[in-house]
Amino acid sequence: MPPFTRSRRPTLAIITDFGYRDHYVGAMKGVIASIAPATAVIDITHGIPAQSIVAGAIALRESWRYFPPRTIFLAVVDPGVGTARAPIAIDTRAGARFVGPDNGVLWLAASEAGIKRIVKLTSTRHRLTNVSATFHGRDIFAPAAAHLSRGTPLASLGPSVRSIEKLELPRPVQSLRELRGEVIYVDGFGNLVTNIERGRVAEFDASFRHKSLSVRIKSGRAAIPIVDTYAAQPKGAPLATFGSFGLLEIAIRDGNAAAHFGAEPGASVSVVGATT
Amino acid sequence: MPPFTRSRRPTLAIITDFGYRDHYVGAMKGVIASIAPATAVIDITHGIPAQSIVAGAIALRESWRYFPPRTIFLAVVDPGVGTARAPIAIDTRAGARFVGPDNGVLWLAASEAGIKRIVKLTSTRHRLTNVSATFHGRDIFAPAAAHLSRGTPLASLGPSVRSIEKLELPRPVQSLRELRGEVIYVDGFGNLVTNIERGRVAEFDASFRHKSLSVRIKSGRAAIPIVDTYAAQPKGAPLATFGSFGLLEIAIRDGNAAAHFGAEPGASVSVVGATT
Amino acid sequence: MPPFTRSRRPTLAIITDFGYRDHYVGAMKGVIASIAPATAVIDITHGIPAQSIVAGAIALRESWRYFPPRTIFLAVVDPGVGTARAPIAIDTRAGARFVGPDNGVLWLAASEAGIKRIVKLTSTRHRLTNVSATFHGRDIFAPAAAHLSRGTPLASLGPSVRSIEKLELPRPVQSLRELRGEVIYVDGFGNLVTNIERGRVAEFDASFRHKSLSVRIKSGRAAIPIVDTYAAQPKGAPLATFGSFGLLEIAIRDGNAAAHFGAEPGASVSVVGATT
Repeated sequence: MPPFTRSRRPTLAIITDFGYRDHYVGAMKGVIASIAPATAVIDITHGIPAQSIVAGAIALRESWRYFPPRTIFLAVVDPGVGTARAPIAIDTRAGARFVGPDNGVLWLAASEAGIKRIVKLTSTRHRLTNVSATFHGRDIFAPAAAHLSRGTPLASLGPSVRSIEKLELPRPVQSLRELRGEVIYVDGFGNLVTNIERGRVAEFDASFRHKSLSVRIKSGRAAIPIVDTYAAQPKGAPLATFGSFGLLEIAIRDGNAAAHFGAEPGASVSVVGATT
Repeated sequence: MPPFTRSRRPTLAIITDFGYRDHYVGAMKGVIASIAPATAVIDITHGIPAQSIVAGAIALRESWRYFPPRTIFLAVVDPGVGTARAPIAIDTRAGARFVGPDNGVLWLAASEAGIKRIVKLTSTRHRLTNVSATFHGRDIFAPAAAHLSRGTPLASLGPSVRSIEKLELPRPVQSLRELRGEVIYVDGFGNLVTNIERGRVAEFDASFRHKSLSVRIKSGRAAIPIVDTYAAQPKGAPLATFGSFGLLEIAIRDGNAAAHFGAEPGASVSVVGATT
Repeated sequence: MPPFTRSRRPTLAIITDFGYRDHYVGAMKGVIASIAPATAVIDITHGIPAQSIVAGAIALRESWRYFPPRTIFLAVVDPGVGTARAPIAIDTRAGARFVGPDNGVLWLAASEAGIKRIVKLTSTRHRLTNVSATFHGRDIFAPAAAHLSRGTPLASLGPSVRSIEKLELPRPVQSLRELRGEVIYVDGFGNLVTNIERGRVAEFDASFRHKSLSVRIKSGRAAIPIVDTYAAQPKGAPLATFGSFGLLEIAIRDGNAAAHFGAEPGASVSVVGATT
């Protein structure tokens, strides 16, 4: 096999809320293939709930680090398309580049990767000739990402800007009796991903020397056990575990926790302990 | 970066109504990879509503021109699979090639690209050995498109035919008081795309020197304003704009117009003016 | 065009029940691109109903033989993730390789391809450094498949094992009056695929010299005719045909049989004859 060589083009990975019904993603890929035919394009997902910047930002944060170092991420969740929100591209210390609207969707991933430089996409040479008011994914973002993948320097795409829109997820709050967080993401299996990190649970546990910990959702009475794998519970039973996000998730073994608990993003989740 | 060279194979872009649940698209791609392993394959969408030739034809028309010039488009929306409708391939003056059933799905795009030659796919050397009665996408269309991408001349696939099935979209009708069209496509965001082109609205406006124009849907009383971007209206408010199709679209800012108006393809839409 | 050369990497084809909403498939593809950037990756489908090992096994069986001979199939339908069920890879006499959980999902395809060798994926050099309890698709299966595609021998991935979990589909039962089977797969068009092979129907017919055959579903009275193509029936009418699976399917011409008959996998289907 030939070794990985310097001349290989960076991967271009796309995440949008365009869904799978229309030709919108296809038109973007046509634009990319026209500008950068040798670039490998990977779909992360196009199933982000329509206009959900938070879901897009979380999905991007949870995937970027699994890609090759110099990957260009094109993220289009853009309810403000056509308004004053700037189109931007970001270079990071980790090597990853991000292209998308300046509305927070890039924040979680880009700040984790270490923001090095931000530019506003103003270069008319690096967008389509006719720019529509409703589809900047095709007309501005895809061309910019495609040009980056061909080696166009970030600085050619437009002037540097100092700061971008941040997106702060809610943080869990610790009291004597509980560590209280909330659901921040519901996945396609109905698993309820919370904002409670493994380390915070360990800290809460250490502070109060609990005999055992359990989880409650939506102030319900049922104590959901924290287990290592789905299989630690019988089929149909609720469980909490640290899933692939590194965050506490509530699931139903072989079932759908979102449907079972009627829970959506924002639903309260508490870790509670029985003190010794 | 190596320059775009003549020896690069054309892109093969696929659009179907096969959906995302089954292996049908996968089987087609396996066939393509077996025949033409070096061809780059791009999905436009597989979410065309089942057996909707019109939706497939519109999605193909709205995407083909964003692809590289010699792209081969494989379009399979084929309610008449196994009947007398011919399998065809088309070469065009713009360079694009189209492969699919002769039922109208190719018409809008191919006629826009300028039909140069049409052949009927009869060559048994360019299809699978066993042809099923229900899955010509896998057995006839994918092999033909894959062979084209390897450089097989169109004429090798079968005899020329003179004409193909046309698909005419309804045209808007202009009267003294209104320009009356209809919804022809509903996208995944619930935006209602009409058959009313920007030029027709300008013409209607010029003829009667209206003070201002607004839009009505389903003969409702509400006057929907025509604006340049979604953001010109507050969240949750209806608006009309010329979207990425170059056609008048009715949308709800950050919402779903199809659900809000209970509108489907065929719903009447009028542009009306207040005369000075 | 350059000829197909020995140095071309094998295709990697993926099938999962991860759906299209989350970044899970994207993260797997990022892992593959990081390990094997030159490998071509094809999605078969990610729309297998959640945790349905049978649907995954059938979709894999119906697609594997359309891919190039040395394709690596990565199949992740894994309700038992994190339990004792082994992660495995299989080499076959047909050349195809299969990677996935040992829960039956690989059985139908791999046994059809002729199982030659099975290994348990234990090599820590061929998985991610941190293995989560809930996402072996990303952490174990994708890395193993990517390494195989780069030429890593199967034996490097772990020790040989003797046997794997089988998955037997129900078989039709023949009596004097009927050949009785059941629905085993419902596709995205609502077609009801049964376990009744064409040869079994011919045999049943030959044994009793029927004047004509028809099909009944869910013990209903309506006699559904067996026809060669969808188009043999008028729009909206039920029909039975031997579809792309080579199995008897019940369909509604231009409609949805699953909705029409309220039928799911397991629904009984009988072929009955009128004797001469």
